[in-house]
Amino acid sequence: MPRTDTATATPLAPHPDRLFAADPGARAVARTLYEAVAHAPIISPHGHVDAALIADDQPFADPAALLITPDHYVLRLLHANGVGLEALGRADLSGTGTVPPGRQIWRNLAEHWDDFLGTPVRYWFETELHDVFGLTEQPSAANADAQYDHIAALLQQPQMRPRALFDAFGIEVLATTDAPDADLAAHARLAADPTFRGRVVPTFRADAVFDPSRPDWRLVVASVGQAAGIDTGTHDGLLAALRARRQYFIEHGATATDTGVLDAGSTPLSPSERARIHAAALQGPAGVTAAEAVAYRHDMLFRWAEMSVDDGLVMQLHPGVVRNHHAPTLERFGPDTGHDLPGVGAFTEPLRPLLEAFGTAPGFHLVLFTVDETVFSREIGPLAGFYPAVYAGAPWWFIDTPAAIGRYRSAITDSTSFTKTSGFIDDTRAYCSIPARHDMARRADAAYLASLVVTHQVSEEDAVRVAQRIVSDIPRATFKL
Amino acid sequence: MPRTDTATATPLAPHPDRLFAADPGARAVARTLYEAVAHAPIISPHGHVDAALIADDQPFADPAALLITPDHYVLRLLHANGVGLEALGRADLSGTGTVPPGRQIWRNLAEHWDDFLGTPVRYWFETELHDVFGLTEQPSAANADAQYDHIAALLQQPQMRPRALFDAFGIEVLATTDAPDADLAAHARLAADPTFRGRVVPTFRADAVFDPSRPDWRLVVASVGQAAGIDTGTHDGLLAALRARRQYFIEHGATATDTGVLDAGSTPLSPSERARIHAAALQGPAGVTAAEAVAYRHDMLFRWAEMSVDDGLVMQLHPGVVRNHHAPTLERFGPDTGHDLPGVGAFTEPLRPLLEAFGTAPGFHLVLFTVDETVFSREIGPLAGFYPAVYAGAPWWFIDTPAAIGRYRSAITDSTSFTKTSGFIDDTRAYCSIPARHDMARRADAAYLASLVVTHQVSEEDAVRVAQRIVSDIPRATFKL
Amino acid sequence: MPRTDTATATPLAPHPDRLFAADPGARAVARTLYEAVAHAPIISPHGHVDAALIADDQPFADPAALLITPDHYVLRLLHANGVGLEALGRADLSGTGTVPPGRQIWRNLAEHWDDFLGTPVRYWFETELHDVFGLTEQPSAANADAQYDHIAALLQQPQMRPRALFDAFGIEVLATTDAPDADLAAHARLAADPTFRGRVVPTFRADAVFDPSRPDWRLVVASVGQAAGIDTGTHDGLLAALRARRQYFIEHGATATDTGVLDAGSTPLSPSERARIHAAALQGPAGVTAAEAVAYRHDMLFRWAEMSVDDGLVMQLHPGVVRNHHAPTLERFGPDTGHDLPGVGAFTEPLRPLLEAFGTAPGFHLVLFTVDETVFSREIGPLAGFYPAVYAGAPWWFIDTPAAIGRYRSAITDSTSFTKTSGFIDDTRAYCSIPARHDMARRADAAYLASLVVTHQVSEEDAVRVAQRIVSDIPRATFKL
Repeated sequence: MPRTDTATATPLAPHPDRLFAADPGARAVARTLYEAVAHAPIISPHGHVDAALIADDQPFADPAALLITPDHYVLRLLHANGVGLEALGRADLSGTGTVPPGRQIWRNLAEHWDDFLGTPVRYWFETELHDVFGLTEQPSAANADAQYDHIAALLQQPQMRPRALFDAFGIEVLATTDAPDADLAAHARLAADPTFRGRVVPTFRADAVFDPSRPDWRLVVASVGQAAGIDTGTHDGLLAALRARRQYFIEHGATATDTGVLDAGSTPLSPSERARIHAAALQGPAGVTAAEAVAYRHDMLFRWAEMSVDDGLVMQLHPGVVRNHHAPTLERFGPDTGHDLPGVGAFTEPLRPLLEAFGTAPGFHLVLFTVDETVFSREIGPLAGFYPAVYAGAPWWFIDTPAAIGRYRSAITDSTSFTKTSGFIDDTRAYCSIPARHDMARRADAAYLASLVVTHQVSEEDAVRVAQRIVSDIPRATFKL
Repeated sequence: MPRTDTATATPLAPHPDRLFAADPGARAVARTLYEAVAHAPIISPHGHVDAALIADDQPFADPAALLITPDHYVLRLLHANGVGLEALGRADLSGTGTVPPGRQIWRNLAEHWDDFLGTPVRYWFETELHDVFGLTEQPSAANADAQYDHIAALLQQPQMRPRALFDAFGIEVLATTDAPDADLAAHARLAADPTFRGRVVPTFRADAVFDPSRPDWRLVVASVGQAAGIDTGTHDGLLAALRARRQYFIEHGATATDTGVLDAGSTPLSPSERARIHAAALQGPAGVTAAEAVAYRHDMLFRWAEMSVDDGLVMQLHPGVVRNHHAPTLERFGPDTGHDLPGVGAFTEPLRPLLEAFGTAPGFHLVLFTVDETVFSREIGPLAGFYPAVYAGAPWWFIDTPAAIGRYRSAITDSTSFTKTSGFIDDTRAYCSIPARHDMARRADAAYLASLVVTHQVSEEDAVRVAQRIVSDIPRATFKL
Repeated sequence: MPRTDTATATPLAPHPDRLFAADPGARAVARTLYEAVAHAPIISPHGHVDAALIADDQPFADPAALLITPDHYVLRLLHANGVGLEALGRADLSGTGTVPPGRQIWRNLAEHWDDFLGTPVRYWFETELHDVFGLTEQPSAANADAQYDHIAALLQQPQMRPRALFDAFGIEVLATTDAPDADLAAHARLAADPTFRGRVVPTFRADAVFDPSRPDWRLVVASVGQAAGIDTGTHDGLLAALRARRQYFIEHGATATDTGVLDAGSTPLSPSERARIHAAALQGPAGVTAAEAVAYRHDMLFRWAEMSVDDGLVMQLHPGVVRNHHAPTLERFGPDTGHDLPGVGAFTEPLRPLLEAFGTAPGFHLVLFTVDETVFSREIGPLAGFYPAVYAGAPWWFIDTPAAIGRYRSAITDSTSFTKTSGFIDDTRAYCSIPARHDMARRADAAYLASLVVTHQVSEEDAVRVAQRIVSDIPRATFKL
């Protein structure tokens, strides 16, 4: 509900000790650990920033279009508190509605600032508004217009262009997420540009080819074939085209794939069976049963690992998200509008066929992400604690929070220490939140490590070393960067 | 096992700082937050006190009948430690056994006081015995008779009558839970009584009409029809009768319904299909298959939401409790004897049809409770963090404890801050424990908020404001009080 | 990955306050509680040390054979970090490979010491290397040979023989785990030996007879019959033989059975149905369907409880472990090589038939263990909080860690205090780690109890008493020792 304004603005001043424990001893250790990594370069091996944004280096549009409308974390919280998606700038797909001007969208955020209290979304926002945009007051109805104008003006300045921010943020590597038929032209432009010294690498994401029950499956299969110049009318053709596309991505700097599936089932099919389902699915959505579509998808996950063993691309996997839970919102506003929801996680049983085949294959890296915390101690930690191929992915999306990072570290460290973890991933479309998110993770890890130090489970010297590795050689090794 | 007595009694003196963190800085903040709400009126939007208790305002019977025999929290712990239910005053339904006098029942509690150590049941009991009954020694075999006599004498005094306690406890609103055919006479008497200034509102609970496989289903359906003056021989008739009864409750002050079901499935049926199953079920328990009974129940949950959208009653839902786990105890002593047990929680998938239809309906409030903690971060938080209709119910029953409240706040705040939570519900039959339970929740919330303050995630000023809202406008808004 | 050596060795000096909270107040209380139990005798009611080890009292072989090769906790972490099982001393079952000398195996551990950072495995190892073997440097590539030689020399000394260590460790009772056809000769020798004053008791574990789909089922059934002198060609015969074997174990000091099954299903079969499946299974693996094998196993779990009610043996149950997840490793190196993995836990529903029949049977003790933490608050705590027969087993295997012990205590204490818990079990094959493991649990419990004391939920006096009971009369009562 909208907050009643007070005459006096509340200061916005992120505290230098935030997220560190209250106990003075623990706090001092956390500070030491944090300081050892606070200014380390950012390695961002998994995210959703568009490479063209960096390549084109155009000024950002208005504050709402930058910070609110495209960010489903922000949208869902405002929506939950009664602000419709149109009022937040998402156009009704029917074309019948109208979206308000950016200034009004920003006011919606400011009036509901209280509804973000205590959330990581507000935490990132505060850091970002302060550090990137130089604001010193908490947003409120009273200062909404002034803050909007301040940011809008700032966005026109050269130091706020994407490339200038890339440098200012201290980004060393930024991985994007790209469609299987992508030409990667922006990546190529950046690589060829001697004035750009950063590293922007693509990630191969081909979820649509996994599932023949998807309405866009035939389109994507055809498009992958066209991009690869290989006929995907047969299953072997599709596999060959995918291998070719992966190679194309590798040539453009990719070190990893990313895959989101409903479940992690990985039972392989016989060549004849997968050929048969592929051919049937090409006849149209009615060509395969639901069970056949699932079997095809499970087989494809198996093939995905097989390809990774062959070409060396790191395999990222995040099953268990229920996409587009609210059909009326999907129909009206499209996907990524805040109603993808966590499902029950399961890895140990469904991944068994894949791990029996490839779990000990030299050089194979399989990074497991979840939105269901219960699997950290029960499944992901123990799997990463036996299989050389398995890495425990950082907490992500709904559980990308200081408290959840603490629970993740506690559960995973017990099973498998630090070397088999992924390091932080920001997974964000919100370019300007990248430093805030990495900073939060570094603080949360410092707080966790400090708790081990003050309980004498790890020496401070070892903790400093681990903190440094978590932001450098651990993600580099996991993602082969 | 019984505790060996010591010559010296152990003092009973609840500490003013209990539940606050040990760190002096965090403790000071928690104190400040707690003091801001310690004496706020009690809003109790969900509980099981009988309205007639307040309306009749008779003195309570003996201490055991007040504090032990009807409280299944106390019964189950004594039973787990070897005290039979008869020895605790529950009559054998066959009429063959005998229950001991209250004094002996009290002695059973006193001798097993050690078996409650560290539990919230003992925590509430200690606060209640000290604050309400003025005891200053921990119960023990040595002081059992003296404490029993002390309480028994006190219960005869006028200041210990239910209405005097209502005022002394500072209760502003107390919601009861009532059968769908209830005449709500006690509520009417209280509303009409100018000498009673409190507010006691009914809650519409009609679990039995949901499930045609229940032995009492036909009886309740008929009884609802009689109470409403509407023929429930057809499904449309039953729906009309239920709407009429809801309206009757609204006229008597109700703002909410409450529903406990085995699972949260909510797939609607076609009118003809639900009419058919209804008619078949009226032929007797053999008239419907198990699958039909489940389908009927899922449809009824959908109708329940539909009715709430129409009449504005808040819909409370708590699926996932396995009722009467131990059949021999049920047969001998009846229900509510300590063996209702938590089941696995699930909301995201089963509630999908209901939420697609009503999740964004204006004014619809759906409060989700669970006894399975794993769903806080995975399901309830994310649902409340997108759907305007969904509110995250406070931890309840088995997880109504200081530690679990902390885990709930941590999981839910990350997803959806504070405004989409329910505020505390005491859910109790134990009238005299109400202040102790609310006080515990206020302390636990103060401790949680203090942890955010000292880690600089929330300012102390904001935390005070949130603490105050949690006991006032948040429950008022959620429950439309 | 291997650690880069530093010139200076890192000291190995377990801190006297380790695992206690950083806050000075909480730490002081934890110290007091720990000191009250630090030197209490060790009661080890569940473990995997071979009784012959104590009976024979031979010097241990080399350090690697003692501390690395047989310990699947250590194996799995090294394997996860790229060290093959052969390099750790596990012989390839085909006989084609060669295992390196102990000195080289030790070097593998030392080079990967960093990959154990923060894990309980390293924690135990540090305590053990320091307290038992007198090492004062953290293992490293630089000191690997010297440390190996130091331990190897020490193992030849008389004070390092198993019996001398038994006394030095302060073990009062050690329970072993034994096959159903075991002759228990080593136990008998120890009992008859007036020079041995310790108590080593067998535990009856007959998992193989539960599951007729196991390849070794017929062999074990025959072997049990032979050991009992009773024909196991009929199901009644098998039950009689098992009863006889249990009696034999009782005569040799056993107080408990132990059972690991895939799930806790306990639905009984009719006598004719179990007789029929038994007879069919004796025809060979093809004789029974998968469903029949499961039904037989569930019935056997029911019978197991029935036998315990009759003969008084405590029933330990730990369902939910997925054994031998990686078939290629099983085929090459055999079982217990680090890829048994946790599965989803479930107790409330599957145990219902068993508990309805025996949950209130006088003297029946059923101790429930899990590797899935989610069941502590949802299932095990509530079951132990109603059924007199049910005890909440300590966190075990993957969750036998300081952090998980804290979560266990928090979840279980809320539901059922301390008297219905098992006390610590070390469950270890690693004889020399026993004191380190018990010491860790005592510290973790002291830290948990201190957290209740400083938040004024339990008095320090009560906490001291509980800490003492947790290592003495609670395990003695639970396990009837």
